[in-house]
Amino acid sequence: MSHGYESGRLDLPFVGICTFGKYPLCLDWDNIQADVAVLGAPFDLGTQWRSGSRSGPRAIREASTLFSFGHAGAYDHEDDAVYLPAETTRIVDIGDADMIHTDTTRSHANIELGVRKILAAGAIPVVLGGDHSINIPCINAFYDQGPIHIVQIDAHLDFVDERHGVKNGHGSPMRRAAEKPYVMGLSQFGIRNVSSTAREGYEDARRMGSDILSVRQIRKLGVDAVLERVPAGSRYYVTIDIDGFDPSIAPGTGTPSHGGFMYYEVLELLAGLAKRGKIVGVDLVEVAREYDPAGVTSILAAQILLNLIGRILDAR
Amino acid sequence: MSHGYESGRLDLPFVGICTFGKYPLCLDWDNIQADVAVLGAPFDLGTQWRSGSRSGPRAIREASTLFSFGHAGAYDHEDDAVYLPAETTRIVDIGDADMIHTDTTRSHANIELGVRKILAAGAIPVVLGGDHSINIPCINAFYDQGPIHIVQIDAHLDFVDERHGVKNGHGSPMRRAAEKPYVMGLSQFGIRNVSSTAREGYEDARRMGSDILSVRQIRKLGVDAVLERVPAGSRYYVTIDIDGFDPSIAPGTGTPSHGGFMYYEVLELLAGLAKRGKIVGVDLVEVAREYDPAGVTSILAAQILLNLIGRILDAR
Amino acid sequence: MSHGYESGRLDLPFVGICTFGKYPLCLDWDNIQADVAVLGAPFDLGTQWRSGSRSGPRAIREASTLFSFGHAGAYDHEDDAVYLPAETTRIVDIGDADMIHTDTTRSHANIELGVRKILAAGAIPVVLGGDHSINIPCINAFYDQGPIHIVQIDAHLDFVDERHGVKNGHGSPMRRAAEKPYVMGLSQFGIRNVSSTAREGYEDARRMGSDILSVRQIRKLGVDAVLERVPAGSRYYVTIDIDGFDPSIAPGTGTPSHGGFMYYEVLELLAGLAKRGKIVGVDLVEVAREYDPAGVTSILAAQILLNLIGRILDAR
Amino acid sequence: MSHGYESGRLDLPFVGICTFGKYPLCLDWDNIQADVAVLGAPFDLGTQWRSGSRSGPRAIREASTLFSFGHAGAYDHEDDAVYLPAETTRIVDIGDADMIHTDTTRSHANIELGVRKILAAGAIPVVLGGDHSINIPCINAFYDQGPIHIVQIDAHLDFVDERHGVKNGHGSPMRRAAEKPYVMGLSQFGIRNVSSTAREGYEDARRMGSDILSVRQIRKLGVDAVLERVPAGSRYYVTIDIDGFDPSIAPGTGTPSHGGFMYYEVLELLAGLAKRGKIVGVDLVEVAREYDPAGVTSILAAQILLNLIGRILDAR
Amino acid sequence: MSHGYESGRLDLPFVGICTFGKYPLCLDWDNIQADVAVLGAPFDLGTQWRSGSRSGPRAIREASTLFSFGHAGAYDHEDDAVYLPAETTRIVDIGDADMIHTDTTRSHANIELGVRKILAAGAIPVVLGGDHSINIPCINAFYDQGPIHIVQIDAHLDFVDERHGVKNGHGSPMRRAAEKPYVMGLSQFGIRNVSSTAREGYEDARRMGSDILSVRQIRKLGVDAVLERVPAGSRYYVTIDIDGFDPSIAPGTGTPSHGGFMYYEVLELLAGLAKRGKIVGVDLVEVAREYDPAGVTSILAAQILLNLIGRILDAR
Amino acid sequence: MSHGYESGRLDLPFVGICTFGKYPLCLDWDNIQADVAVLGAPFDLGTQWRSGSRSGPRAIREASTLFSFGHAGAYDHEDDAVYLPAETTRIVDIGDADMIHTDTTRSHANIELGVRKILAAGAIPVVLGGDHSINIPCINAFYDQGPIHIVQIDAHLDFVDERHGVKNGHGSPMRRAAEKPYVMGLSQFGIRNVSSTAREGYEDARRMGSDILSVRQIRKLGVDAVLERVPAGSRYYVTIDIDGFDPSIAPGTGTPSHGGFMYYEVLELLAGLAKRGKIVGVDLVEVAREYDPAGVTSILAAQILLNLIGRILDAR
Repeated sequence: MSHGYESGRLDLPFVGICTFGKYPLCLDWDNIQADVAVLGAPFDLGTQWRSGSRSGPRAIREASTLFSFGHAGAYDHEDDAVYLPAETTRIVDIGDADMIHTDTTRSHANIELGVRKILAAGAIPVVLGGDHSINIPCINAFYDQGPIHIVQIDAHLDFVDERHGVKNGHGSPMRRAAEKPYVMGLSQFGIRNVSSTAREGYEDARRMGSDILSVRQIRKLGVDAVLERVPAGSRYYVTIDIDGFDPSIAPGTGTPSHGGFMYYEVLELLAGLAKRGKIVGVDLVEVAREYDPAGVTSILAAQILLNLIGRILDAR
Repeated sequence: MSHGYESGRLDLPFVGICTFGKYPLCLDWDNIQADVAVLGAPFDLGTQWRSGSRSGPRAIREASTLFSFGHAGAYDHEDDAVYLPAETTRIVDIGDADMIHTDTTRSHANIELGVRKILAAGAIPVVLGGDHSINIPCINAFYDQGPIHIVQIDAHLDFVDERHGVKNGHGSPMRRAAEKPYVMGLSQFGIRNVSSTAREGYEDARRMGSDILSVRQIRKLGVDAVLERVPAGSRYYVTIDIDGFDPSIAPGTGTPSHGGFMYYEVLELLAGLAKRGKIVGVDLVEVAREYDPAGVTSILAAQILLNLIGRILDAR
Repeated sequence: MSHGYESGRLDLPFVGICTFGKYPLCLDWDNIQADVAVLGAPFDLGTQWRSGSRSGPRAIREASTLFSFGHAGAYDHEDDAVYLPAETTRIVDIGDADMIHTDTTRSHANIELGVRKILAAGAIPVVLGGDHSINIPCINAFYDQGPIHIVQIDAHLDFVDERHGVKNGHGSPMRRAAEKPYVMGLSQFGIRNVSSTAREGYEDARRMGSDILSVRQIRKLGVDAVLERVPAGSRYYVTIDIDGFDPSIAPGTGTPSHGGFMYYEVLELLAGLAKRGKIVGVDLVEVAREYDPAGVTSILAAQILLNLIGRILDAR
Repeated sequence: MSHGYESGRLDLPFVGICTFGKYPLCLDWDNIQADVAVLGAPFDLGTQWRSGSRSGPRAIREASTLFSFGHAGAYDHEDDAVYLPAETTRIVDIGDADMIHTDTTRSHANIELGVRKILAAGAIPVVLGGDHSINIPCINAFYDQGPIHIVQIDAHLDFVDERHGVKNGHGSPMRRAAEKPYVMGLSQFGIRNVSSTAREGYEDARRMGSDILSVRQIRKLGVDAVLERVPAGSRYYVTIDIDGFDPSIAPGTGTPSHGGFMYYEVLELLAGLAKRGKIVGVDLVEVAREYDPAGVTSILAAQILLNLIGRILDAR
Repeated sequence: MSHGYESGRLDLPFVGICTFGKYPLCLDWDNIQADVAVLGAPFDLGTQWRSGSRSGPRAIREASTLFSFGHAGAYDHEDDAVYLPAETTRIVDIGDADMIHTDTTRSHANIELGVRKILAAGAIPVVLGGDHSINIPCINAFYDQGPIHIVQIDAHLDFVDERHGVKNGHGSPMRRAAEKPYVMGLSQFGIRNVSSTAREGYEDARRMGSDILSVRQIRKLGVDAVLERVPAGSRYYVTIDIDGFDPSIAPGTGTPSHGGFMYYEVLELLAGLAKRGKIVGVDLVEVAREYDPAGVTSILAAQILLNLIGRILDAR
Repeated sequence: MSHGYESGRLDLPFVGICTFGKYPLCLDWDNIQADVAVLGAPFDLGTQWRSGSRSGPRAIREASTLFSFGHAGAYDHEDDAVYLPAETTRIVDIGDADMIHTDTTRSHANIELGVRKILAAGAIPVVLGGDHSINIPCINAFYDQGPIHIVQIDAHLDFVDERHGVKNGHGSPMRRAAEKPYVMGLSQFGIRNVSSTAREGYEDARRMGSDILSVRQIRKLGVDAVLERVPAGSRYYVTIDIDGFDPSIAPGTGTPSHGGFMYYEVLELLAGLAKRGKIVGVDLVEVAREYDPAGVTSILAAQILLNLIGRILDAR
């Protein structure tokens, strides 16, 4: 990039246009050349409580620039490892899927198109929601990619089949996923408290192959035992609802649910998963800037995503 | 109401359940007995910028309790008149229309049902949005009520015909209204600045009978001259987009537009209108609590509505 | 309820008037027919730091509508149990006690009246503060109900006898309670850090029968050992100061105190208590919306209350 | 002050302890040596809507440091005058009156004591509220000072005699003042909209000698004509309720009322008053930081007070 | 741009990467091909009150996407004109100047470099601050561009020569500009109230050729008379401190000053200026997102800039 | 203090001028008579992400008044000890160091002067930042005080040597400290995640004698084992970056980093340190009120400082 500075740029985090992690922008979706491609899905018509998650992609992108310090990659002194080394990391931001207000079906279709383009380029899609219903088109896009196992981090089961004709709201994505022939199973982690899924939803989920664990259950089992329950060597799709985290670190979301995960609990789980098989797709949903006055929720989203991507690429 | 206090209650504004103006709740829609019935329409799937107006009805209801001081009605020292005298004022709050997330068509249908029920009871509907698309089912409900003239307070023309298949978003209500055979004309006041309606939309509007005036034009003309342009003796439907007001007093909305109306400019216009003909329906839309940290926007909405209702009832 | 919809309502949490948990409103205090009756006590004249807890009842009521998903009751997958089953749950919201600004004595008297009415109806009072001084009239109302043991969740001991003539501020409720002949003892849990109660207050409390435990002490002991210290088979009155929780999940309160409880620590304690004896009254105090920009504090209050009520009714 | 800097201090506004205008602190109330003495009255037990004005004194003091630029006094280029010249300006901050939570009577008495001490020292009291009820002890303190005329800037008449036994809440100060034999009259400016004062209150006020003007009426009359209505050459006590200003510039208050004064309207009125007679006391009330996210309300309060004090001292 | 959608994109304002007005990004500063080039200058080390204006460029860019509705240009119904028609408008966003924390001199130098690159490309620079000190390097960059006249919209004179060795803080830019041989004069509009510039600063300014007018003076004169005072046919550099506007519409700034301009007052002045001569450079400074909870300040900044650019290009 | 009240003052926390802990103000820096002296250092020109920490000193001072309950000292029921007993505690607040905007070097020099004055008076300096770069002049001031060991609580290593010429930003203080001959070693606790320090920085730190431990490592080791790693009997300088704490309790800071310390983890470490050797200086940095809407961050800062000071003085 010819910025006109003879001596390079210091490029502090608060400086510059907000693409994800300050990685290059690629708006030509037929020419994606990357190992990871980030797509925004600013859709929030599927929410049942307070709206706002359409602000998620912009909020996460801006927060992610905080972590662009690591010109030489991100050194983790606990692992004594450098993740995302500049020379070999190929990440692009492909912008947002086009949204059609009032229209869930066509907005979802546009998200699916974006994910398909990424997959067609051989890259791993990382999709920034939007509400959790955006997981539906993401999973749809994997229809021709071979079998996947879904690992969900969430407070809510999201297993409502249909209510008043609604099948594609943010209370139903895991049900929709479980119906796919290429979804081999679900690991649903962090599920707790009352929500839209009633008793029958849980029974359906278990019947359809879900392994449901609460935060307390996971703490009792420990990371290793939890990972043991996930089929080894599979192709994993990871869907992170930010409300899987505790409201203390993720207040900026539509339906906060107390008693959630703290940061390292999730990071260790996902880092282990990256080693246990192959993560082929990721979405992170339900960040809503409107309820995040200190910005810690979007910082959390950016931090967990960049660390996860680093570990995915490192595991290759 | 038998509250068990021998000496009555002081009933300060901050005390008690939040119905509109602390007027009685009537959840039996087939048994509405009132002159004015307030309906919430917490729908925000039609927005093109930031979402949040689903919070409008709850925000306005809570703010309206601030004005429940006037046990003996609301004394206005400038007019030397008591509006909303307790003994003769019959207002009820009938709660909210049922919303179906992800589904614009059915949510709109439920709003239309609520307005029809109010009209069937012979009451004036006052609908609390939600985004401006909720005006579409409101106007639909008037299909068998005889001719109406629409008076709009708004920053935006909202006259988009169709874009990418969207016909019922918050950029189109006035276009949809103008198409009705029973809508005789539109007075569109406060329109200013760039927005979703392009040049052709303005041309269509003028051709279809709209009288479009900006805030500056209205200030130059004066209230009386503006009122002269509205057909006298008609049945008026008033639709107030809170962004018709200046962002200084109405920051809590999706698409603030600078250079808007101040409070008394609108009140005087509407008070004059209440005398010029018969106001048969009202909606107030686009209040979003998420952007209203000091609560002044919902206070504005409640204040203008209670004053308008007072003047409508007084004019009878 | 005749809402006019043929097919019922979806009744999403963000829709409708805010009563506690969307349970029915009962403003006739001489005709309360319920097992649990919720009363608001929006009083904050007793605070020694920042005011605002008068907003508590409205904030908690609105947050509680988030948990009205469970039409068929609230299914808890960890307990594999349905709490608050629709068919047998009788909860009403009786609105707020009347507040008299500037006047502590009479405002307190009105709260006491409300609680007496609930007790007279044979229901369990659940009172939403307001500051912690509202516990004083609540306990007063139990004067003819037989012996009770008080279990307090709080950061502060609230055991100031009198300072500068003040006996009924929010620093004194536990002292006032301890003086009652029908209060058999106090379990004061979560107490930590410096506050208004000086060394003598602690000495008085211990002398008057208090069992005082800090958060760290409780963590070391474990839930079971802590419950063992509470007299078994008693009639318990539970008073929850939201600042007993950690500021990370309960920032929206007057006097946050770091190092507090997390959500499940309190839930497990209270769930155990519901089985150990009979909970005959509850108050939850000090929620102040002014300091709760993301709403997590009022969500916490609603979540703990609905779970506690579910377990109380389940234990019957 | 011996700060140890050889070259003096730049003393930017954001630096240093927050006394009013960075003027010296004088905590020995029997030794006040100043022309103007500022007293905080952080009392908010008299409010009928949202609380919080106890934060007013601290908020205003901090905002006032923004105006401490003028080491050489405050140069006003429109007047071509230097106000508050360093060499002759004697202002002190005497801290806050002691507040007794739960107790209106004794808190008010402490405010009265502070004002008396200031008057005894021959200084002009400038009292920072707190809610408007703090005007009651302020006026009480003038019982032996000779006749005064009250000029009120406010949205509300504050003329409630008694309701449910309350006589000293924030809805009553002007009534209480009007009852004093040494209060010769009231000019009540900015009064508008519905509030706690019913029709009879207005009638009482007019009968007891009030001149009531709304914002619109004042705009029509013009500053000079309004000033003409105030008795010339009198001793004025000025009480400024920040809600007399428009919510657009004063959102940070308990009961905002749309349609209020803009900044220069009030400044010109008060500047004219300072020349028309002798201003002997000032209070500014109802600033509540909780609703002032951008700080503009406390900046407004500080700005109007410093300009008013400058003009009072200049007029001497 | 090959986005992969067959039918184009709806491209709603809330969708997509935030460049200014969604215009193309040009990071190769030696290859700028545009009529207008937008540069961010996120520098806030020059502030004397609260910091935060480094957030300005990102906040304004995001707000500017709200105005990207006008695919076919921006239709202004009052002027009956289309501004910024898509086919002929060449605007680019060149990102931010590199900032060096702790170092004013080098950060300023980097801003100057960016402006020089824009000028070298024959484009008009539009610089987004940052605090007002960033005007200093902007003006420096014009050293070889021929004579300019500066038109400033501001609450403050910014004419401090030197205090404690500081010459390049945000209180001094107009003084620094006035010293340039190629700055022919200054029109300083909106100046009011107390600030860092003392009496001597005003005297210096007048002596060095400034025309200083307050908001009230400008209102009395009217737009046309004010424009008459600006030398006709000159090359103008426009510097807009957002605090020139009233705090009611521009709360999000470091040093709000009450009594400022409303939106159309400034737009009309600048629109007139665009016709009176040639505007050759623009900066807009002091927007700070931290104090702009509803986003109205950044919306104001984007709105005035896009309208100004439209009129500049239209006047060519 | 002669306040004129016969019966003393209740002096509630929300009342009175905000000095640190309401301890006396001492603006004569050549006459400091205290065991502990608190100095504000409102400097934020060294930040690499969002600014605002110049608001730290005022925010912490105000929060600290919450803890002024303890007229008779602060009784800690867990330790059964009274800290900061009124009769023997000598703490003063000496105000702020003078800041020179735009100028890091001279602002830092002024901070150093303040610390030197405190040391010359034989008191322990407690410095309130400001960003972490203010630690540089603090450590400089110890040049003639004998050897010290630095204990840092922080998320970030802050060990950048030089980048683009910057040596004294908030990413470098520990590097600068390590270079001093009188700094014998560093214990860097809480370090985690990516930040400005690259791999070489860590290598340098270890080589120069740092003991680096993450939060997870410290949790595994336990407090006692961690303390064992700190040289016993030394003179400790404690530097607390508030972002060492978890964002859940310290959102109000520039660069929050998830996975941080909770309150008691740090308190127990510092309490142990106070017994293990002699704490000779303290700074607490990076509190920024702009991101602390509920005030919990400044409360945390005040709470940890007052408890630390209490334990330092108790250990003497």
